[in-house]
Amino acid sequence: MEETTVHLHQLLENNGISAVRAELRGKSVVDIAQALEELEGEELLLVFRILPKDISADVFSYLEPESQGRVVERITDRELSALVNDLFIDDAVDFLEEVPANVVTRVLAQASPDTRSLLNAFLSYPDSSAGSIMTAEFMALHDDITAGQAIDQIRRTGVDKETLDTCYCIDPQRHLLGVVTLRRLLFCDAETPVRSIMLQNDGLIYARTLDDQEQVAQLARRYDLLSIPVVDNEQRLVGIVTIDDIIDVMDEEATEDFELMAKVLPSEKEYLKTGVLESSKNRIVWLLVLMISATFTGLIIENFEHKLALITGLAASIPMLMDTGGNAGSQSSTLIIRGLALGEIRSKDFAWVLWKEVRIALLCGLALAVVNFGRMAVLRFVTHSPISTTVFFVTCLAMICAVLVSKTIGCGLPILAKALRLDPALMAGPLITTIVDAITLMIYFGFANLFLKFPAGV
Amino acid sequence: MEETTVHLHQLLENNGISAVRAELRGKSVVDIAQALEELEGEELLLVFRILPKDISADVFSYLEPESQGRVVERITDRELSALVNDLFIDDAVDFLEEVPANVVTRVLAQASPDTRSLLNAFLSYPDSSAGSIMTAEFMALHDDITAGQAIDQIRRTGVDKETLDTCYCIDPQRHLLGVVTLRRLLFCDAETPVRSIMLQNDGLIYARTLDDQEQVAQLARRYDLLSIPVVDNEQRLVGIVTIDDIIDVMDEEATEDFELMAKVLPSEKEYLKTGVLESSKNRIVWLLVLMISATFTGLIIENFEHKLALITGLAASIPMLMDTGGNAGSQSSTLIIRGLALGEIRSKDFAWVLWKEVRIALLCGLALAVVNFGRMAVLRFVTHSPISTTVFFVTCLAMICAVLVSKTIGCGLPILAKALRLDPALMAGPLITTIVDAITLMIYFGFANLFLKFPAGV
Repeated sequence: MEETTVHLHQLLENNGISAVRAELRGKSVVDIAQALEELEGEELLLVFRILPKDISADVFSYLEPESQGRVVERITDRELSALVNDLFIDDAVDFLEEVPANVVTRVLAQASPDTRSLLNAFLSYPDSSAGSIMTAEFMALHDDITAGQAIDQIRRTGVDKETLDTCYCIDPQRHLLGVVTLRRLLFCDAETPVRSIMLQNDGLIYARTLDDQEQVAQLARRYDLLSIPVVDNEQRLVGIVTIDDIIDVMDEEATEDFELMAKVLPSEKEYLKTGVLESSKNRIVWLLVLMISATFTGLIIENFEHKLALITGLAASIPMLMDTGGNAGSQSSTLIIRGLALGEIRSKDFAWVLWKEVRIALLCGLALAVVNFGRMAVLRFVTHSPISTTVFFVTCLAMICAVLVSKTIGCGLPILAKALRLDPALMAGPLITTIVDAITLMIYFGFANLFLKFPAGV
Repeated sequence: MEETTVHLHQLLENNGISAVRAELRGKSVVDIAQALEELEGEELLLVFRILPKDISADVFSYLEPESQGRVVERITDRELSALVNDLFIDDAVDFLEEVPANVVTRVLAQASPDTRSLLNAFLSYPDSSAGSIMTAEFMALHDDITAGQAIDQIRRTGVDKETLDTCYCIDPQRHLLGVVTLRRLLFCDAETPVRSIMLQNDGLIYARTLDDQEQVAQLARRYDLLSIPVVDNEQRLVGIVTIDDIIDVMDEEATEDFELMAKVLPSEKEYLKTGVLESSKNRIVWLLVLMISATFTGLIIENFEHKLALITGLAASIPMLMDTGGNAGSQSSTLIIRGLALGEIRSKDFAWVLWKEVRIALLCGLALAVVNFGRMAVLRFVTHSPISTTVFFVTCLAMICAVLVSKTIGCGLPILAKALRLDPALMAGPLITTIVDAITLMIYFGFANLFLKFPAGV
């Protein structure tokens, strides 16, 4: 399916507002929001105002923060008040987190007292916590009613809830007692007590407000849930996290891991929305750190420079060994960081993972060494270069050790980070190469010193 | 929330089957499936048989393929028939794709004729297509009924549908006409014609059976949908893809990109479920290819070896330059590959992306060169090494050019791959380093030849 791109500005100029209204009719709110993005201030306001009342808050929630700001700047207090009260709390929070303080003040002033106190509470949850991505529009039921009463209540009060698929059973103190799906309510006898069909105890999956958003995503992933209830310290239900936000979290966390592994400072903005200066800033940090830390590898080589010149073929293998070490290490670290992120690898598996990597390293190292021996032999034959067979052995031996060390570090660093409750991708991603480079060189030159005869005094 | 681990084997031995039944009561099907994994053949069958009939197919769908095989081997034809007909088609297809041919034959023989022909049709869709991940249990409505009639029909026939959240409106020839949510049906007047409230035309989002699963995931992501209808060539509704499978696709595709960027052959198995031999095989391929291709960088260095020995400080910068070039290139390629995967970057953006990367490269290259100059000056001062300032200039100039070339290649390769309809991660991930290494060295030695005076005849 190709998506339709609508050029509202032209349509508005040539055919007027009624043509725009006809064009937008029946379109998805996502596509409408995207079409609005291209409009400037007054035009944007004009078109935003003709949107049907039941979708305008929804369209607003899909606008970019800048466009949201432009709309809010221009609408009347009365319109703003209606908009804020129509928005789902999570969308309102997302919006308020991105706009200047004076806009926040004005928005909060126009919100109803209930909405305002909810917004204030939700804005106070730490970034990346379950509380920061939850919404307050969930369908709560008391557990002492019947399925028929529940459906009546849903029909009466459910229209502005973010999801009806799952309803949440609470006691009068709002403690979370269980969950029941709308499907279950629909397919049982109207007289069935909700209490008897709700999932409770062990079957009840929930998060706490301060849980990391990644944990919430892992719960949804594991149990295939469309929403996760969030409780406070007293086990009271305070919100739910819906699957659309969970998918955003999954994408965000994966992108962050990609960035860290590519040695880029994580940014929450999309690629095309990050300016050249900001992009450069995000990239230069690790480039600088790694360049400076390459001083050590440089010093190691410099120390060995005269010896390198004396034995043919010794210098030529340096890039290959460093690359192989780096590649072997990043293979392990990436797979382990990803396994940790998806919850496939847990703390109890750490020893097993290390042992597995060691065996893989030995197998890969041996295979590489054998092929490398052949490669060097062919090269010697073709180039008639006077490389001694001892150099072959030194290179191959260094190769095996380098792969072993690289893979051990590559799997050890993320595991160590996880055990210390640090982000494995942050700790391990950019560091692996530098550490592995230095160690690979030391191994190589160590074996060279051990097995090759250098003239005395060098 | 900590998940509960149940040790059924011990419980079964010590307290018998009724204790197991009590233990599993109220648990999520996901947790039950996990608890079953640890059981051997006969015990597994014993416990599987005591599961309530309404959840046993669901539990089965969450078992690992090996355990599914062990259950199917041991149950009677009658039980198998009930199981197959109870499974959602997508879960049955997932299972059949993993088991030996003789099991497939037996399962198909026990399926009802309808289920069998559906299974045969669904099994024939290519891997990674929308058809291969869709299911047939969707709620179809004719568009000429009212909302009240629709709800009646859902109550009568909806119990075994995978999702009720969204219902699909079709004509008598099963052409997809529109979609309507259960929410919408619940909150409108019972007399409202379904046709008047369904999303249709531009608002109707769907995929085709042969669309790539990644495209389906992008639709769900963009439009925040819980299910996507899939139509055949004649626009007939043949299945739906639900959000749980879409999340699996998202995870799978991201993991594949991680693997390619870590230079590992993609595997559909989780880390802990891949054996040492298989893991080694997945990793050795690129390690070998890259090691052999490092021959070129080796030859470049070897050719220059004698000159390197003559000028102090020239060899020492090689690892730093290669690392910086590699890092700069993989920064660009990773961000672009991720942007393409998430649909943030499209073909119309390619020229802009290239121009952006060139500017970032110039900024980063300049900054790196300046810091590098300082770094080398400090190093000269500290080590009293007789490095000439010309070497500084050569290194810094090579640095700027290397970053520029690396970033251009790093963003050009994935874009080229995408334009050629190849997988950007496959084309770009592992190749960048080798290409960038060779070019960086050639630039460095080129500038050295140009600006440094070597004794004649070297």
